[in-house]
Formats: sequence, structure tokens, C-alpha cells
Amino acid sequence: MSEGLEQLTRLGCQREPSALAYAERIHALVARSALLQDRTLDEVRRLTPYMQVYTTTGAVQIIAEGDPGDYMVLVISGAVEVIKKDRWGSNKRIAIVTAGETLGEMSMLDGEPRFASCFTREPSIFAVLARDRFITLIQDDPVLGASILLRLNQMLSQRLRQTGSKLVATMETQRVS
Amino acid sequence: MSEGLEQLTRLGCQREPSALAYAERIHALVARSALLQDRTLDEVRRLTPYMQVYTTTGAVQIIAEGDPGDYMVLVISGAVEVIKKDRWGSNKRIAIVTAGETLGEMSMLDGEPRFASCFTREPSIFAVLARDRFITLIQDDPVLGASILLRLNQMLSQRLRQTGSKLVATMETQRVS
Repeated sequence: MSEGLEQLTRLGCQREPSALAYAERIHALVARSALLQDRTLDEVRRLTPYMQVYTTTGAVQIIAEGDPGDYMVLVISGAVEVIKKDRWGSNKRIAIVTAGETLGEMSMLDGEPRFASCFTREPSIFAVLARDRFITLIQDDPVLGASILLRLNQMLSQRLRQTGSKLVATMETQRVS
Repeated sequence: MSEGLEQLTRLGCQREPSALAYAERIHALVARSALLQDRTLDEVRRLTPYMQVYTTTGAVQIIAEGDPGDYMVLVISGAVEVIKKDRWGSNKRIAIVTAGETLGEMSMLDGEPRFASCFTREPSIFAVLARDRFITLIQDDPVLGASILLRLNQMLSQRLRQTGSKLVATMETQRVS
């Protein structure tokens, strides 16, 4: 198992024995999930054996800013707060992520340090997809792997567009002020 | 052929009869190309039949900001200028893209309007990958398709990280000023 996932258990997350047992519950999130959009129950059943499911009973840090990251998180229930330090070291809440939404795709994909920290804010259940397992999925089932990669690409494109527009707008505000 | 590619010819780009004939020339760019990184000549030969190659003799617009986009561009030789209008309608040069580099991945992937305009600035050669051909490639050759998708994901992740950091830095500068 990946170093990152070992750490989740140390930090207080409980690992469920079977992720496949959560397939129907994960499939129920399809309508509100960018990652799972249009996935059939059969596809979710092919995906979940490559995931791990964890539960938390309250506030637990599940991703640490600056750490090397090798997994992404799909929230099944509960809520996760995303926090980034500004240059003065103050914590800034940048998002709250709930059921169906995902976290940490960037580091799962490129292995770069985590951009922000994530904490569960209430008892939560989440599924984790680690890079090595995702690569194995792509090798075992390239059609499903490519389809998930295509969705991840579209999600990143949209986020890049939003962030780029915010950057242009912020720089323009500066020019005015 | 896609609507977007029809337009390239109308705008003054010359379409080459065979993209496969450019496979070796494209493979020679591997060392300086994020998209092609680690690709073998065999893989480039499997990819190029899904592409179109175009040449320009000088300044030609190859992507228009705001247009629906359905293809990405790999520069084979020459240079492409990337320009975005600010809110006052002034053109701002945001990048110069040269051999091995790519343009327009985001719209190819998510079909959203183009974020910026692109103009060749000298006689240039570029290969185009349209969304429908890329989807066909993924179906025909899911292993190669997934591998290219994985690279695109990593490229977008890195760009998102850079843009996100710039945004955070710009917002912090504002707070100081």
C-alpha cells in the first residue's frame, strides 16, 4: 500500500475491509459528481476494487499541504474543509467539499506536493484512489481507465479556466486600483 | 472533418496530405515536448494517423478567443503567439509557443469556448488533434489513448498549480497594497 494511505490510518481514519461493498452507495452519487458523471453501476463496480474506503468519526486531517501526494479522495458522505496557508502563515478556507466531490486529483496525477490541506469536519466516509492502483486499473481495464482520465481532464480544464479567469480579473483590478 | 478544421483551411493554412509522413519529425521533438515525453517512434506512428498537419507561410490566426474549440495544436516548427483580450479590449500577449509545445488542450477536452487567440508569427508547421479523432483513437487503441490522457492530465495539473499559485500571490499583493 502507498505511504500516503498508511498515513491515513495513523491519522485516525478507519479503513473499511471492502471498497466494492460501497459500489452502490458510490453509484448513488453519480448525479452530483463530476468524476462519476454518466458512470453505470457496472463501471463503478469495476472501479471500486482499485479504491480503499475510509471512515472518520470527526475532525481528521486527510491531506497535508506540501506533502508528496499520491492519492485522490472521493467524498461519499460528510464534509471536508480545504485550507491553504497564505504567506503570513494564516489558514484560509478555500473550499468545503461534500458527497460526490473529489479532492487531490492533481497530486494523484503529477506527484507534486499537495497544494492545500484537507480536514473532515464531521463524521465522514470517503474513497481513495492511489496513483499506483489507478495505473494498474488503466493497464487492467484501459477502456474504463481512459474514460475516467477523460473526465479528470475535463474537470481540470474547467478548473484551470475558472482559475485563469479569476487571475485575469484580479490582475485587472490591481491595474485599476 | 470537424467544423474547426474546415476553418483552418479558410483562414489560410495549407493542409498536408499525410500526417503520418511527419511521424519522424514529430518524434524528434520528444525531448522538448511535455505532451510527447517518453513516446517511442512506434507510438508516434500510431498517433499521427489521427492528426492533421498544416503549414502556414506567415501570420495566420489558428485559434480565436471565444470560439467553440474542438482541436488541440502541436507546434512542429515555427512559433505561435497566444493573445488574450483584457476587459478593456486590449490585446495582451500571454505566451509564445514553439516546437514541441501544445495549444488548445482545454477546449479539445471540454468543448468550452477558447480562452485566448493564437497566431502563427512566422512560417510554421503544426499538427492538429481534433476531439472526435482523439475519442476514436481512445476506442481504437485504449492503451495509447490512456497514456496520452495521463500526460494531458499531468500537464493540466501542473498548469493549474502554477495558475493557482499566481492567483494566491496576486491576491496577497492586493491585500498588502
